[in-house]
Amino acid sequence: MTAMDSVRRVSEMADGLAGSGILKVAYEVRALRDSGRDVCDLTVGDFAPREFPIPAALADAIEAALRGGETNYPPSSGMPALRQAIRDFYAEWLGLDYAVDSILVTSGARPAIFGSYLGLVDPGDVVVYPTPSWNNDAYCHMVGAIERQVPCDAAHGFLPTAALLAPALRGARLLVLNSPMNPAGTAFTADTLAEICDAVLEENARRGGAERPLYLLYDQVYWMLTFGGTTHVNPVVLRPAMRAYTIQVDGISKAMAATGLRVGWLAGPTDVVQRLSIILGHVGTWAPRPEQVGTAKLLGATAELRAFHEGMLRSMRARLDALDAGLRALAVEGFAVESIPPMGAIYLSARFPLVGTRLADGSVLESDEQVRRFLLDRAGLAVVPFRAFGVPADTGWFRLSAGAVSVADIDAMLPRLRDALRLTTGAGALTHA
Amino acid sequence: MTAMDSVRRVSEMADGLAGSGILKVAYEVRALRDSGRDVCDLTVGDFAPREFPIPAALADAIEAALRGGETNYPPSSGMPALRQAIRDFYAEWLGLDYAVDSILVTSGARPAIFGSYLGLVDPGDVVVYPTPSWNNDAYCHMVGAIERQVPCDAAHGFLPTAALLAPALRGARLLVLNSPMNPAGTAFTADTLAEICDAVLEENARRGGAERPLYLLYDQVYWMLTFGGTTHVNPVVLRPAMRAYTIQVDGISKAMAATGLRVGWLAGPTDVVQRLSIILGHVGTWAPRPEQVGTAKLLGATAELRAFHEGMLRSMRARLDALDAGLRALAVEGFAVESIPPMGAIYLSARFPLVGTRLADGSVLESDEQVRRFLLDRAGLAVVPFRAFGVPADTGWFRLSAGAVSVADIDAMLPRLRDALRLTTGAGALTHA
Repeated sequence: MTAMDSVRRVSEMADGLAGSGILKVAYEVRALRDSGRDVCDLTVGDFAPREFPIPAALADAIEAALRGGETNYPPSSGMPALRQAIRDFYAEWLGLDYAVDSILVTSGARPAIFGSYLGLVDPGDVVVYPTPSWNNDAYCHMVGAIERQVPCDAAHGFLPTAALLAPALRGARLLVLNSPMNPAGTAFTADTLAEICDAVLEENARRGGAERPLYLLYDQVYWMLTFGGTTHVNPVVLRPAMRAYTIQVDGISKAMAATGLRVGWLAGPTDVVQRLSIILGHVGTWAPRPEQVGTAKLLGATAELRAFHEGMLRSMRARLDALDAGLRALAVEGFAVESIPPMGAIYLSARFPLVGTRLADGSVLESDEQVRRFLLDRAGLAVVPFRAFGVPADTGWFRLSAGAVSVADIDAMLPRLRDALRLTTGAGALTHA
Repeated sequence: MTAMDSVRRVSEMADGLAGSGILKVAYEVRALRDSGRDVCDLTVGDFAPREFPIPAALADAIEAALRGGETNYPPSSGMPALRQAIRDFYAEWLGLDYAVDSILVTSGARPAIFGSYLGLVDPGDVVVYPTPSWNNDAYCHMVGAIERQVPCDAAHGFLPTAALLAPALRGARLLVLNSPMNPAGTAFTADTLAEICDAVLEENARRGGAERPLYLLYDQVYWMLTFGGTTHVNPVVLRPAMRAYTIQVDGISKAMAATGLRVGWLAGPTDVVQRLSIILGHVGTWAPRPEQVGTAKLLGATAELRAFHEGMLRSMRARLDALDAGLRALAVEGFAVESIPPMGAIYLSARFPLVGTRLADGSVLESDEQVRRFLLDRAGLAVVPFRAFGVPADTGWFRLSAGAVSVADIDAMLPRLRDALRLTTGAGALTHA
């Protein structure tokens, strides 16, 4: 060890920042597949383009933009045509009325979230978020926020309620919610979200303008992807007074299977959005210009958009239903697995409560991480434990992400899973058979 | 005024962050042009695609990638093919040997700079940068750094020397340099940069591994654009020991006239680059995937790249030379204008020392900002004062950016400028005629 090893080489923030737990798992899976193993990869919140291509109208419009010389800097708040198209799209599809000046285009939804943290939260401010949830621990660390996590359970679809959240809101700067939700694939009902909005409004009323406000960062990037009886709900639609306190985060990444094209946006109070535009202008998170022009075209092409959307919903639902039905069939057989019926997004919550079970070789599965490896090794099933979403204990719950597989891939995996579960004995194994 | 007005609505950082002075000017110019005025727009460091289209091979390769389904998430460090292509490109063109693991792809050069600040600088750390320079004041504010500005003068092409910098390096965390340089259009000589590297190495040797290192953030995004006898120089080529302390920032934005495609990268010590990859993964600054795949193809297509590069150099040089020659002709006529012969980038430094001059209507130009407006109003010439680049005084120096105009645009502007200068009397006006 040289003297250099004892000295930090990067900033304190960088030194303490954890990488994505999801990506760590995903890279391991990729390596396994590259070695020739048959793996049903349900890890990354992404799409296999052969399963989920982007809308043809979007590809056409991006190409036309590229050929038409749309290759220089976009305005730092986004192309005017795209901001207008988002305005119209929100008015038509969500009944939301945002002025163009209240909309900021970003390179995907992620910089919109990071920028909101940076623009709203001082070091030492309190940020409230439910667990499981995606990446809020990292963002809190990056801005030096104090985290107030609100644990949510399976009984409520891993979603928070006003009763759970309200005590945490006192003095907080930011509440972060996501619906439909990553990782659980569940979504708020209107009643639950309205009650949460009332708690936010009450807290802001209590401050009476003498303290800085409590904001709601509402990540609705999956809102077009709801299934069955689920209807997406929005805080500003439910409670118009929430407009002053809400930053809406969105993008084409998930709804259009376009994670690699880097087009997202946020909408919020104009004064706040203008500050976020300055911040993100310096960070340099403009969406690429041809993709911006193409997205504006797509959002305005209502017929193409509706047709794509229906196909996308059908395809995603087929996969999530196949997973859900397959796990239920195993449960009927007596295996202690369970799942939450899909409501939205591209995820299914599934429980493999195998901690404590003994394998044929005598070894015992001692953590959800070991369960994850067991499922990967023995069933060729790659999933992400809820521990990667801020849950501090081994609950047996995992996220299954369905965008990168076919129904056939799922059908091929289920018998492998059944065989693997047969290898376990004891708690969580074949309990009723 | 309501109670709300007295309370800050955003974070302290956001509240104090200034927007781009360049963009403010550029938006004003755009509005003037939209009103029908003939303006030679030399403001934004950007390109008019009709004057500077991207390489045809790049457009073709992006289209092929888009059609080929390259539409999902790229790996967060960048597409392997692009990182390999950058490695090979650096080896062939710059004689620089970086391993693929030491290269991180970003959505343009800007996030690479912001990420380096975030990853290397703690609040309260000292950052050293020369003025004029681009945007370091904003980045220092964003990470809470203490700025140590080193003013540079026209006699040295607005570039720092080791003698100027060395006293500032003691205890500093980061030195930020850019060559070829924005805003001055000048570039380091090998001797000057080598001496600066020696000062950095000396400071790190003094610390003996007991303190965190002093890093050099070397922004070479304009390196392919050098003119005449200028050769681009690189700290790690000149002083191999600098590898441990240097972050190289680069991208296709300027060299390929592709500012809107959002492909940049950085290269540095592997351990540092891995931390920066985690940070920027959370920020979400991946370059769009089709553009990454397309850029990999272009960098590997040596013949196409060389042909484009030669054409680009010729076109850019023609514009900068036309500006430089036009100003010199005015100086010969007796007008007190001057310029620095173009060495690189897309900029010319020009001096209009008109503060103190009286106009026909009796008013006096009292600041470079007023000079800027005078040139815009009377000559249809849109330029950016060095004040927008951290220079704290009215020096009469302005940045002229040549990517968005034709030589004909410049030729049409010069007589207007001559007429405008005739309107001024007193200091800085027609001094020798």
